[in-house]
Amino acid sequence: MTFERSPRIAVGPAPDERLVRAVTNGGGVPCDLGDAPDALIWTDGPDSFPDSLPLSVRWVQLPAAGVERWLSEGIIRANPQVTWTSAAGAYSAAVAEHALMLLLAGVRSLPAHLAATSWTPEAFYPTLGTLRGSTVGIIGAGGIGRALIPMLAALGAHALAVTRSGRPVPGAVETYPVERIDEIWPLADHFVVAAPSTTETEQLVGAAELAAMKPTAWVINVARGRLVDTDALVDALSQGSIAGAGLDVTDPEPLPDGHPLWSLPNAMITPHDSNPPAVRLPAYVDHVVENVTRFASGLDLVAAIDPSAGY
Amino acid sequence: MTFERSPRIAVGPAPDERLVRAVTNGGGVPCDLGDAPDALIWTDGPDSFPDSLPLSVRWVQLPAAGVERWLSEGIIRANPQVTWTSAAGAYSAAVAEHALMLLLAGVRSLPAHLAATSWTPEAFYPTLGTLRGSTVGIIGAGGIGRALIPMLAALGAHALAVTRSGRPVPGAVETYPVERIDEIWPLADHFVVAAPSTTETEQLVGAAELAAMKPTAWVINVARGRLVDTDALVDALSQGSIAGAGLDVTDPEPLPDGHPLWSLPNAMITPHDSNPPAVRLPAYVDHVVENVTRFASGLDLVAAIDPSAGY
Repeated sequence: MTFERSPRIAVGPAPDERLVRAVTNGGGVPCDLGDAPDALIWTDGPDSFPDSLPLSVRWVQLPAAGVERWLSEGIIRANPQVTWTSAAGAYSAAVAEHALMLLLAGVRSLPAHLAATSWTPEAFYPTLGTLRGSTVGIIGAGGIGRALIPMLAALGAHALAVTRSGRPVPGAVETYPVERIDEIWPLADHFVVAAPSTTETEQLVGAAELAAMKPTAWVINVARGRLVDTDALVDALSQGSIAGAGLDVTDPEPLPDGHPLWSLPNAMITPHDSNPPAVRLPAYVDHVVENVTRFASGLDLVAAIDPSAGY
Repeated sequence: MTFERSPRIAVGPAPDERLVRAVTNGGGVPCDLGDAPDALIWTDGPDSFPDSLPLSVRWVQLPAAGVERWLSEGIIRANPQVTWTSAAGAYSAAVAEHALMLLLAGVRSLPAHLAATSWTPEAFYPTLGTLRGSTVGIIGAGGIGRALIPMLAALGAHALAVTRSGRPVPGAVETYPVERIDEIWPLADHFVVAAPSTTETEQLVGAAELAAMKPTAWVINVARGRLVDTDALVDALSQGSIAGAGLDVTDPEPLPDGHPLWSLPNAMITPHDSNPPAVRLPAYVDHVVENVTRFASGLDLVAAIDPSAGY
């Protein structure tokens, strides 16, 4: 699609001025949703989304990187005439940084250190490690996984990537297709789960996978809680069959008060805040400028949603 | 100095077989200290060092990166005929990784997260930050500081270095000579103290410096405790005039039980274990191979100690 004129683009339901400016900076003309816009930059979740879109709308930009609810609740399917884009990739670096933080804190036993009230270095020596020279299995090398690889490389750690296709991921020492994923569990020193949540990836990390890991392994999940079997993880952490877990996402989520994960000393929980508002908005603004520029020029949009793939 | 024959090198007091192999791999011939060695690879602290060295010894390699006690107790001065080398640089990457871990954990509020037992992301939003786009003041750009800069760069953070000379440090956005250090306190977002401990650097970070920092600043010390005024730091942390501190070294050290730093929620203490034994020995072995190779070839040794500089 190309335009004879600048595309008219609505921002809503909350027209943050930085996003309105992003529309202008990308070559669009801000307008209201009632003014027959060509596109809609959405700023909220699915609950407040309009029941029907103006027929003029040909593109909707969503603010989330994961769009399960938009798919499962049929909103995207109800508007097949529209190109839908997510914010996949926009927050990748922030989430990758969070994953690295959890992984480093685990490998260097920060939770045990923070619980200590006495100077006892020898007590920590048996569990203290380094990322240098280690291999990190990256389950799902989309935006987050790809952003993480150079961060690991700067620390002298090696990435083993697992993707659907197995096509080599830049910077990874080796890339495995998902059919060969079982090879990676005993091989890598640590794991970062960064795959989209689909029916195929549900409980990808279960009891058998945890049992196959090294006892020194840390498992970090920054993707979606359902990719990990929570009960199996609690068992593995309780028994010490792995070293620990760092979870920005859980299943169930929110994690209820009193859940065993809250009290396990080798579980680090961050409540899905790897990409907090102060970090998120500037990244979404950049993403919107990019896609408005492409929309105005008739170019392919970044992070187009493929309903059949589930992301 | 050059050799007609392979140099004879003693390893002691504990002749770890990996270090003995390092001597061989570097082109030396392992021998005992009583057998008139040309050099000594030391494996312990100063307390067990021999009162007098065989006159044949022309080089002593020490296993520590910081050698204050070797200097202050006069051991190095008592043997001026010997070239002394430290392990400065050998452990830089390990300590830099630890500094990055503490900095990331601080910026992303891990201590508060680990104390939580309920899913309350909004409670963390006001303090959650990112290293991306931030500036990190690196006080002392020796081996540790220089190892840290590319790690920060991979996370999109910018290094401001402070060195004695102010000569540009590779990778730093700007390098300040120590005379201009006061410019950096209000300017950088966070600080990593990585300077050697000398009379000039004692209490380099005191009450005035802490007061000049941003209230969101994290201060990480992986060098020596005496570089930071502990009482002033406790005051700043208690009053929240900075965000927090991550300390691998303290003054006094060991930090006594009951010290306020143990209970401040925004202080992270690791008991000088950024470079634990499992990480340290492989790095020392590499360093010994390098210096034995240089010694056998008559080349300048790495990390020669300059008693007048104090490191």
